[in-house]
Amino acid sequence: MKSTKITETALRDAHQSLLATRMRTRDMIPIAEELDKVGYFSIEAWGGATFDTCIRYLNEDPWERLKRLKEKIKTTPIQMLVRGQNLVGYKHYPDDIVQKFIEKSYTNGVDVFRVFDALNDVRNMEMCIKTAKKQGAHVQGTLSYTTSPVHTLDNFIDLAKELEALECDSIAIKDMAGLISPVDIHKLVTRLKEETDLLINLHCHCTSGMTPISYYAACQAGVDILDTAISPLSWGTSQPPTESIVAALTESEYDTGLDLKRLNKIKKYFDGIREKYISLLDPIAEKIDTDVLVYQIPGGMLSNLVSQLKEQNALDRYQDVLDEMPRVRKDMGYPPLVTPTSQIVGIQAVMNVLNGERYKIVSNEVKDYMRGYYGTPPAPVNPRISKKIIGNEKPINYRPADTLKPEFDKYRQMGEEEGIIKKEEDILTLALYPAVGGTFLRGEAKEEELKSSKKIAIEEGEIG
Amino acid sequence: MKSTKITETALRDAHQSLLATRMRTRDMIPIAEELDKVGYFSIEAWGGATFDTCIRYLNEDPWERLKRLKEKIKTTPIQMLVRGQNLVGYKHYPDDIVQKFIEKSYTNGVDVFRVFDALNDVRNMEMCIKTAKKQGAHVQGTLSYTTSPVHTLDNFIDLAKELEALECDSIAIKDMAGLISPVDIHKLVTRLKEETDLLINLHCHCTSGMTPISYYAACQAGVDILDTAISPLSWGTSQPPTESIVAALTESEYDTGLDLKRLNKIKKYFDGIREKYISLLDPIAEKIDTDVLVYQIPGGMLSNLVSQLKEQNALDRYQDVLDEMPRVRKDMGYPPLVTPTSQIVGIQAVMNVLNGERYKIVSNEVKDYMRGYYGTPPAPVNPRISKKIIGNEKPINYRPADTLKPEFDKYRQMGEEEGIIKKEEDILTLALYPAVGGTFLRGEAKEEELKSSKKIAIEEGEIG
Ligand SMILES: [Co+2]
Ligand SMILES: [Co+2]
Repeated sequence: MKSTKITETALRDAHQSLLATRMRTRDMIPIAEELDKVGYFSIEAWGGATFDTCIRYLNEDPWERLKRLKEKIKTTPIQMLVRGQNLVGYKHYPDDIVQKFIEKSYTNGVDVFRVFDALNDVRNMEMCIKTAKKQGAHVQGTLSYTTSPVHTLDNFIDLAKELEALECDSIAIKDMAGLISPVDIHKLVTRLKEETDLLINLHCHCTSGMTPISYYAACQAGVDILDTAISPLSWGTSQPPTESIVAALTESEYDTGLDLKRLNKIKKYFDGIREKYISLLDPIAEKIDTDVLVYQIPGGMLSNLVSQLKEQNALDRYQDVLDEMPRVRKDMGYPPLVTPTSQIVGIQAVMNVLNGERYKIVSNEVKDYMRGYYGTPPAPVNPRISKKIIGNEKPINYRPADTLKPEFDKYRQMGEEEGIIKKEEDILTLALYPAVGGTFLRGEAKEEELKSSKKIAIEEGEIG
Repeated sequence: MKSTKITETALRDAHQSLLATRMRTRDMIPIAEELDKVGYFSIEAWGGATFDTCIRYLNEDPWERLKRLKEKIKTTPIQMLVRGQNLVGYKHYPDDIVQKFIEKSYTNGVDVFRVFDALNDVRNMEMCIKTAKKQGAHVQGTLSYTTSPVHTLDNFIDLAKELEALECDSIAIKDMAGLISPVDIHKLVTRLKEETDLLINLHCHCTSGMTPISYYAACQAGVDILDTAISPLSWGTSQPPTESIVAALTESEYDTGLDLKRLNKIKKYFDGIREKYISLLDPIAEKIDTDVLVYQIPGGMLSNLVSQLKEQNALDRYQDVLDEMPRVRKDMGYPPLVTPTSQIVGIQAVMNVLNGERYKIVSNEVKDYMRGYYGTPPAPVNPRISKKIIGNEKPINYRPADTLKPEFDKYRQMGEEEGIIKKEEDILTLALYPAVGGTFLRGEAKEEELKSSKKIAIEEGEIG
């Protein structure tokens, strides 16, 4: 009997997907010991958008959160999501920052590092992986899943082998839009199990509504770990409900062995959390959106698109932008749509439609993308479009971070001169987010008020 | 390649489960032709609670609804849910009423009759089945699914064989609480396919969140038909989303062959319906409730329970009532919890707790139940409790409807004397619901106002 393992995402992806990443540490601590007792493979609790949100909106030290969770979660590995060389930010950082950040994440409590890159460019993941391995952590390389003519089964297998060669302990299949079908996941997991020796972890969002079935098909193909969210924070743009998946596998050969009564206690706690944060809950995010099956665009992007167009009084161009998105993605060599490429593609598609001429105005991000500063696109970019955007400039042919100068000492000095560095981790906070981090370290950040009922706008993207 | 067939429940069970059965005929007609083009096995559009709701709250003639739908839905079979000898009411009707009702349902447009009995007592289904067969309709016998020591796989198979002997064309597995697990449905469908020659149809509600996986496991065991609801009216206490199930099966050996683009048009229409009826949408009903996995009690019953206890200022007894429900159900010989047994068990459990002594006060329904007026319970009732309730009275050992006198002519005469009968169907409306039906036929019923935003109370149970 093969026992399927579960990673609980309540403390990271689930509230990032449904509650604008706003859950406070003080609402995590009371349930942390209970979570620790369940027997999860890991508890995802750090990284992704949580770092940014802590200092920007919650006046919370993310390092402090990690340490406090670690005090309560003594047995179960704590997992974080790392955006490769982007760490927990939106741009590449120099190697010294990456190394220091991974080291400090490890010493403060992260046991499992899930490392991804939006373009599946291994060079952008390599420094994270190597540093985390050196600490002795469990390192998970990631296939950012998407569909396109170049995202073939063979290509994903090759990518997995590259990650295995870097000594990753496991592979995460990261399906941001919940697009992976039971047939496709069965093929992918089967081949990954045949052709690598790694643990395979499936991470899907539920947007299309197919996900529970894809999880089951993945079990039948031998998947090792499934990411789920306790039910009050599940479904829609979040993960499938933990209790439902555990119950569905009970008495099958994929039985997780987790105790439903224990999970029910945790569920009741998060019923309360959901109620407390209800003003942040976008009811659209919580529901599935089967439009993704037709447009292949993640739900979070669609709702962002609607608000963007509303702001510009251009909701009547919705369908045009929908049609433009796959064209922009094609021009850009079919990047997976995940932070930051989802935002870059979405915004450019809107510009292309509203400005009456494609690429008449181009965001700086798209310029940098064409220059290769984000990494190598999955397929060659459209040369005609590239020429329009960066002229005869040649895209770089080296790893984007190669030319970035070390910064740690610079920020140390800067911070110490200002007297805002109390521990080494503060230097990283400053280096990652010089403006917002500085404000936070100076004690000038304010905790955003938690509205009791009226909805507030959700400002950031929900994906990745 | 085995093609799985789909029954769309949007026009019956989905709005009964999520919108208090309140969808108007005028909101069904505009999408009816589009639905007809999809290629469903059937469209469930009549029966269950729709008849009652039409005359009680909507000032609509249910027979008229059926005829109008039939004018638009010319190709796809229209399906109805019949509560056996209870038809679309809450008590047994005499055979002449049952025969007339089934005949008129058929001539007005019902092609597929799904017949169930809350106790799985075949005698209560027999008259419906025989009459519908005589019309030439497709007749579906039903296993009302539940778990208990006496609801063994063998017993369900025996029941299916009894229904096959009555010449049913197919078997529905009716899982009101979404309790059936992938392992159990796989076993059940496998044996049904091995031991009967019937089409097998799976009908689940999503309460536990396991249902999509159970649907998939059923496909792998050879299920023929799945009940789904277009996504805006899906999930929670309703069925799984049509588009998600169709997409999940695409390119598998269970491919439904239905067109996602066409379904997307229908989905957009029902997005609007959902918005229009949002005041009726209980947000709890729409979400899954994994408590059912622990308490084995359907979600609809739990929310009814909460409102009952609130009314009586006794919410602090919630856990006591939860504990009492399985005891009452055991005393009553483990009836499946579906209309009307779900209500009977729920109310008695509340009485037992609040009155300080079990069965000190007993509802008339429980008395009748103990007398055998609902049929034969799945297991013998608790003799001590039975004695307390009906003393030495012996339960009947014949079919409950056997002693019911014919009533059709009585109601014809009554109605004609009042001058409220315009067509034979009106006699049935009167016979089924003498009070409410009379009010309706006299033209004194009023259409309930549809509130635009504020929530209104949902008064009836959601199950069955
Ligand atoms: Co995610
Ligand atoms: Co139903």
